[in-house]
Amino acid sequence: MLVTDTAEKIKTMEIRGAGRIARAAVAALGAHSAAFPSRDIAEYRKEMSRVAALLIATRPTAVSLPNAVHLVMRSLSTELLSVASAQEIFSRACQSFISASEHAVHRIGEVGARHIRDGDVVLTHCNSEAALECLLQAHRNGVSFSVFATEVRPGNQGLLTIRVLNDAGIPTSYIVDSAVRYFMKEVDRVIVGADAVSVNGAVVNKIGTSQIALAANEARTRFLVAAETYKFAPRTILGEFIEIEEREGSEVLPESIAKTLPFITVRNPVFDVTPPEYVDLIVTEEGAIPPQMAYIIIRDYLGWEIGDFHGQAGKIP
Amino acid sequence: MLVTDTAEKIKTMEIRGAGRIARAAVAALGAHSAAFPSRDIAEYRKEMSRVAALLIATRPTAVSLPNAVHLVMRSLSTELLSVASAQEIFSRACQSFISASEHAVHRIGEVGARHIRDGDVVLTHCNSEAALECLLQAHRNGVSFSVFATEVRPGNQGLLTIRVLNDAGIPTSYIVDSAVRYFMKEVDRVIVGADAVSVNGAVVNKIGTSQIALAANEARTRFLVAAETYKFAPRTILGEFIEIEEREGSEVLPESIAKTLPFITVRNPVFDVTPPEYVDLIVTEEGAIPPQMAYIIIRDYLGWEIGDFHGQAGKIP
Amino acid sequence: MLVTDTAEKIKTMEIRGAGRIARAAVAALGAHSAAFPSRDIAEYRKEMSRVAALLIATRPTAVSLPNAVHLVMRSLSTELLSVASAQEIFSRACQSFISASEHAVHRIGEVGARHIRDGDVVLTHCNSEAALECLLQAHRNGVSFSVFATEVRPGNQGLLTIRVLNDAGIPTSYIVDSAVRYFMKEVDRVIVGADAVSVNGAVVNKIGTSQIALAANEARTRFLVAAETYKFAPRTILGEFIEIEEREGSEVLPESIAKTLPFITVRNPVFDVTPPEYVDLIVTEEGAIPPQMAYIIIRDYLGWEIGDFHGQAGKIP
Amino acid sequence: MLVTDTAEKIKTMEIRGAGRIARAAVAALGAHSAAFPSRDIAEYRKEMSRVAALLIATRPTAVSLPNAVHLVMRSLSTELLSVASAQEIFSRACQSFISASEHAVHRIGEVGARHIRDGDVVLTHCNSEAALECLLQAHRNGVSFSVFATEVRPGNQGLLTIRVLNDAGIPTSYIVDSAVRYFMKEVDRVIVGADAVSVNGAVVNKIGTSQIALAANEARTRFLVAAETYKFAPRTILGEFIEIEEREGSEVLPESIAKTLPFITVRNPVFDVTPPEYVDLIVTEEGAIPPQMAYIIIRDYLGWEIGDFHGQAGKIP
Amino acid sequence: MLVTDTAEKIKTMEIRGAGRIARAAVAALGAHSAAFPSRDIAEYRKEMSRVAALLIATRPTAVSLPNAVHLVMRSLSTELLSVASAQEIFSRACQSFISASEHAVHRIGEVGARHIRDGDVVLTHCNSEAALECLLQAHRNGVSFSVFATEVRPGNQGLLTIRVLNDAGIPTSYIVDSAVRYFMKEVDRVIVGADAVSVNGAVVNKIGTSQIALAANEARTRFLVAAETYKFAPRTILGEFIEIEEREGSEVLPESIAKTLPFITVRNPVFDVTPPEYVDLIVTEEGAIPPQMAYIIIRDYLGWEIGDFHGQAGKIP
Amino acid sequence: MLVTDTAEKIKTMEIRGAGRIARAAVAALGAHSAAFPSRDIAEYRKEMSRVAALLIATRPTAVSLPNAVHLVMRSLSTELLSVASAQEIFSRACQSFISASEHAVHRIGEVGARHIRDGDVVLTHCNSEAALECLLQAHRNGVSFSVFATEVRPGNQGLLTIRVLNDAGIPTSYIVDSAVRYFMKEVDRVIVGADAVSVNGAVVNKIGTSQIALAANEARTRFLVAAETYKFAPRTILGEFIEIEEREGSEVLPESIAKTLPFITVRNPVFDVTPPEYVDLIVTEEGAIPPQMAYIIIRDYLGWEIGDFHGQAGKIP
Repeated sequence: MLVTDTAEKIKTMEIRGAGRIARAAVAALGAHSAAFPSRDIAEYRKEMSRVAALLIATRPTAVSLPNAVHLVMRSLSTELLSVASAQEIFSRACQSFISASEHAVHRIGEVGARHIRDGDVVLTHCNSEAALECLLQAHRNGVSFSVFATEVRPGNQGLLTIRVLNDAGIPTSYIVDSAVRYFMKEVDRVIVGADAVSVNGAVVNKIGTSQIALAANEARTRFLVAAETYKFAPRTILGEFIEIEEREGSEVLPESIAKTLPFITVRNPVFDVTPPEYVDLIVTEEGAIPPQMAYIIIRDYLGWEIGDFHGQAGKIP
Repeated sequence: MLVTDTAEKIKTMEIRGAGRIARAAVAALGAHSAAFPSRDIAEYRKEMSRVAALLIATRPTAVSLPNAVHLVMRSLSTELLSVASAQEIFSRACQSFISASEHAVHRIGEVGARHIRDGDVVLTHCNSEAALECLLQAHRNGVSFSVFATEVRPGNQGLLTIRVLNDAGIPTSYIVDSAVRYFMKEVDRVIVGADAVSVNGAVVNKIGTSQIALAANEARTRFLVAAETYKFAPRTILGEFIEIEEREGSEVLPESIAKTLPFITVRNPVFDVTPPEYVDLIVTEEGAIPPQMAYIIIRDYLGWEIGDFHGQAGKIP
Repeated sequence: MLVTDTAEKIKTMEIRGAGRIARAAVAALGAHSAAFPSRDIAEYRKEMSRVAALLIATRPTAVSLPNAVHLVMRSLSTELLSVASAQEIFSRACQSFISASEHAVHRIGEVGARHIRDGDVVLTHCNSEAALECLLQAHRNGVSFSVFATEVRPGNQGLLTIRVLNDAGIPTSYIVDSAVRYFMKEVDRVIVGADAVSVNGAVVNKIGTSQIALAANEARTRFLVAAETYKFAPRTILGEFIEIEEREGSEVLPESIAKTLPFITVRNPVFDVTPPEYVDLIVTEEGAIPPQMAYIIIRDYLGWEIGDFHGQAGKIP
Repeated sequence: MLVTDTAEKIKTMEIRGAGRIARAAVAALGAHSAAFPSRDIAEYRKEMSRVAALLIATRPTAVSLPNAVHLVMRSLSTELLSVASAQEIFSRACQSFISASEHAVHRIGEVGARHIRDGDVVLTHCNSEAALECLLQAHRNGVSFSVFATEVRPGNQGLLTIRVLNDAGIPTSYIVDSAVRYFMKEVDRVIVGADAVSVNGAVVNKIGTSQIALAANEARTRFLVAAETYKFAPRTILGEFIEIEEREGSEVLPESIAKTLPFITVRNPVFDVTPPEYVDLIVTEEGAIPPQMAYIIIRDYLGWEIGDFHGQAGKIP
Repeated sequence: MLVTDTAEKIKTMEIRGAGRIARAAVAALGAHSAAFPSRDIAEYRKEMSRVAALLIATRPTAVSLPNAVHLVMRSLSTELLSVASAQEIFSRACQSFISASEHAVHRIGEVGARHIRDGDVVLTHCNSEAALECLLQAHRNGVSFSVFATEVRPGNQGLLTIRVLNDAGIPTSYIVDSAVRYFMKEVDRVIVGADAVSVNGAVVNKIGTSQIALAANEARTRFLVAAETYKFAPRTILGEFIEIEEREGSEVLPESIAKTLPFITVRNPVFDVTPPEYVDLIVTEEGAIPPQMAYIIIRDYLGWEIGDFHGQAGKIP
Repeated sequence: MLVTDTAEKIKTMEIRGAGRIARAAVAALGAHSAAFPSRDIAEYRKEMSRVAALLIATRPTAVSLPNAVHLVMRSLSTELLSVASAQEIFSRACQSFISASEHAVHRIGEVGARHIRDGDVVLTHCNSEAALECLLQAHRNGVSFSVFATEVRPGNQGLLTIRVLNDAGIPTSYIVDSAVRYFMKEVDRVIVGADAVSVNGAVVNKIGTSQIALAANEARTRFLVAAETYKFAPRTILGEFIEIEEREGSEVLPESIAKTLPFITVRNPVFDVTPPEYVDLIVTEEGAIPPQMAYIIIRDYLGWEIGDFHGQAGKIP
């Protein structure tokens, strides 16, 4: 697939999901590198930088996309002897990224599953692949536990979650979002996913997550976040806020009712921010870390440095 | 209306709502007293006690019902010279109770409205007549403020609330229950109602209330409860728990889906308990009190003493 | 002195201070009663009510004034046989109030002094007669302790405080207001006064008090308030806020500088509100009480009932 | 038994335990009243006051003793027509006190038992008759629950507790005092007794209690105190501290070892003070109350007023 | 000594203590390397890996043992030219580890001593060599301070601690474990040791430690942990729990009593887990670090990477 | 300028301010290196070390000075072929340090400004160049916000701050230090500077800062610190306390008054310590980091290792 095709599909959201976007972009870059016709190493570099920037520009607020592109482009930062060797190095970097990304959720599941013990009651919110994998893996390991799953208004993603848990045969209680504190005293552990992790370990996730973390903290219940390392948002080093998108009010209140209520506005934020002091551990494919280590993940695993951003405001996250 | 008719209507929930039940029971008692045929004062007492017990037995877990019956029956506890004078005393007690009850919400509104100031942002949950009256009265007083109202799953009582606020012309933001903490930093005051208040000032109210109180407490936002004094539950002096009812799961998850998910159970508690340390004031028709004063309300306003319960386990709340 | 003279002097602040105002008003009422010429008891009542209202109206936001007037006027609420007997009853009530008020600080000192032990370090803020009396009485009792006194910007009342403590020979450290948390870990007890106490036990006192209470709470240091019972604000039962006055900016920033800084506004609130959860005990002349008992003081000691306020909005506090 | 004999036995601790001391003193007073020979009512009063003071003086720091004496002596505070009628009134007051005291623990058990539910895990500390009665009564009511009991160094009162629980057939886990926080997350409720309750609801109880309350508070576990009303300490209204006794070091460290360690001092406080904010309810024979109601118990049930103490420093608690 | 002998002695607990085990294992590996007869570098590697695994297998839950073996084995991870050079490199690594380990406690003492100031009151729990060294070093530096030492039920390790402190001439108060909160307000600093430190900075130490940390946190008292870097548990990166061993009940309750109490079970956990939010600093031989840096210690000082564990579940910690 | 001249000027405080001192010292070292006459590389090293130590010794408690000297001296730690190449390397290191230092405040401003949003209310304390730059940069970026600035007793640095803000046209409220909690509920963000940052992320700054952080934490207001990386204090790895200087009492209380008050001592600490749990982010020129990352800044950016301090107690910070 041509880079331009991939870029288009990312832009139009034909390709969706943090992991899939990252892998598609890297695959496209890899193909583009392999197909590079000239032997001029300087031109090769230039062309690769151009298409890298082009891909990143398709979703300026995404987190996994620039992380992925940055990670594979780094393989070209050393001295390169020839286009051929550059292509080989780059190809290997792409394959290795794609493979790691595909295995990330599985590895998170292995690590996270060790936090679930016989007899535990685990609460989860929304429909995170990584968080669910921890539960499924623990179940496969023969651990006997039960789950509380929330409804997750307004998207009702809880319905997806309970179907997965039901199909695995994990006994689950389904509750409305506002019943979390009522049951929290019985809960041993909360596991949720993340849409992004900030440099100070704050976790951006589905609206309601921070409220659950607060109730967990009040009741001395451990709160775990399952997040691939490419969810860690490098631009937050710059002090950049992670923007919290507000979606259409009609998701919450049907247009037909809303129009009869001129004094009523629907506020529909998609995410909220859980402060690091309410998070016990973030389970990544590189191991379980305290939230304050987000900076290290961004610097050492994702390979970003503050200098990467100088003079580039607006270009990469 | 005959006492037996009223009792039946309370039992079958034809008569509903804490206030309406209380007033209907008192009215029935008043009519029964007025119609008492004999001149024998001892018989009069006996008969009144019998029908009082009969009425209370219709809803053994209600709070307003025994409070109301107890309050008017107390008027008969002094020495009575004749049935005629007893009837007069009792009639006056009934009228005074009914009138006070009818005015209670209005008086709560007057007191609560003073806690809302120009520019305030007030959050409310569920659809409490008393809490709404505080908002409406403040609006009538010319205070300019705005409101956050929650959706209130699973009953969606928030729809009723926003309609009332819209009709009054009070600008209101409508949010899902799990977005409360997200917006709490902007909120100046929370006002909710109560289904019951325990002897230690714990507030039983719609599921989700305690979660909102927790978030308010975290953000140093004042948390007010609007509650008529007949919501204060005397039996809690006895250490009785206020039972938290769980309703049908089908309110949360349609039966058609539920039956395809054998491992999933719906838990649907109607209320939760907000601990007194998260409540700043309870606004009653007798004034605004700290939650720890619930005991005084029960003893001094409702007139209960611990002795009222001795040897009567199961009879009156 | 004529009631009108006293009223004038209270209005023009010639008579100042919560205690002095209260005693002056009561003395004036007493004199007015004694001088009442007619024998018509109904007229007597009417006249007394008129001058009581006149006195209260001089300082509509004061707390001690209506408390005092209300307390002595209550002596006239029983059946009165003649003007002569009414005058005698009223005279006794006035004398008893004045005497109790004069002794209140002394009795507070006796009670508060018992909370100071050998070796204690006590912190005080502003210049409260009642709080200082606790320190002085403990010193007279032979307790050996030391004090931290704050500077108290912008009025620098700390200078008055350290002079009193110095003259008594109590070793004292003088610190700026912002150094309170720095030294708090060494402090065993905080004692401050109050300008008003709200129905829920919130304490209105010199700006900075709530900040000190917060730091005391963080360090598990006990926080005591010394307050005469006439500081308890009855109207707060109605949900009335205690208004926090803001004084002239020139107390903080000289006019000569301020006028060169057009973008700068001085905010100069005189008081702040310490929430009851940061107050361990309020020491009154009627004993040491938890802050939640404020309601009882207002009802049982000051004699207010919610009914006293019905239809009287704006008349008495 | 002569009053002097009883006084002696209380002094020498032949009569021990808050309840037994109270009843013995009242019984002695009753006998003394009955045997009073003269018909002179003034002399009767004088004599009764004398022996009342004599009894109180035997244990100046006790709490139940002056409470008991004060309660029965109050029956003599109204106008008395003759010694005969005074003797009858007093006799009835004594009998009623003794009977109430004997039933207090039983009634506390009834009230406290309602706070224990099927499946609960309850933690208790030390060996409180009242706290144990709550457990035993719940067990008799057929509630199925289990208990954690602490060892309670240095007196090892936990041994007494587990024997009682074992004999009742209540499954119990026995743990060292320092393991409380480790198990707290599994605990649903803590129930302990009290040696004294202060006017602000602070609970004086066996050393270690406040540490358990802290851990309960951290884990959102409810903390209940079972205490007869005569444990409420009236002198604390005066600001009096409840003195915390330190016992001999040899209870902790054998003398034989201690003498080889000249730099080591044993500190052995018997009690500690649990602040009211960590106490959910105090279960008394008059019902379950929030700790802030201690003042009301002292004033309304025990009948003390601040005036009772004026000019009597050192005489009665 | 032969590796098999050392392995046996570690297994049978003849060699005990985190530090001693680590040094014995490294010494045995060093000897084994030096005695390796063949010149075949591949065989050398294979043999060393075999005995490394053999040693680690002797105590599968230990933390210092795999840390030590891993650290010296890492010296063989580079390209090795000959067995002779490998032996030299390995020998140097072993010597350097042993020397560092021997000096670790001393260096911790130097760092920790700087946290103790003239006039300080320091509380310690259990009998940690590293924590005590901080106190002893401060004493040697001429700092004048006093200590609270706990009894430490059920092992009574406090007796060992007070003997050490007494012999050094440091004034010490000896208290039962449950008296910690009572005295905490007087304490300036807590210093304890650690059995293990988890990747998120949670500290596993003698039962009771987390309770002390909670009380310190409540009173704003700084809480320090003294721990050699080899106490940091690498497997916790994997989400592995540190297992909390429960020892025989007879340590708490003599068998003779226990057998008369069929309903009583003794629960005797050896350690508990102090969450990182209650720990101010961990003093290691590499400096004082915040607990969140545990991950960095494991990665950078101990040299573990997440990859070290893949496919090796059960082999090394 | 000769190194000795610079050293003298630093000593006599002719050169002042953390940044200026650092740059002057580095410039002097650079000049000294360039002027080194001999070709003997060992002598060159020795001489450079000598003058480095000489400079550091001028201000033994400074933090920026040894950080700066250490950073440039590290460039000489690799193998050096000739004095000429060493001089070139060293010259480049010096220039790069000076340039980075000069740009640090500007870069902090860029990062910090991103944390200020339209409509925000920001509170600042004292007169920090770095904190103010965040405000000024946000203003330049067109963000519309307002500021609260404190008076900052006893130095009244608030006057400098409001002048800067006024001149930029930023609307600002000026308040006394003790009014911070009163207004905190309206504040969205606090930004202050730092005099030093400890290894655990504790922030040493102007007295009063920790009190503001406490109030911000209570109200869930984010608390940011703007600090150049050379403010991070390496010796705190050693457990060294950052000494809190106390200045002359006459800054607080005029000598003329003080001498009339023999029992009064003025305590005038210049700084206090804000614990890391109250700090959300530290904004440095290398990006925004959580406070727990202070250790990483000291190790990775400033290049210190624990070994740098061994055997050098007293020499470098």
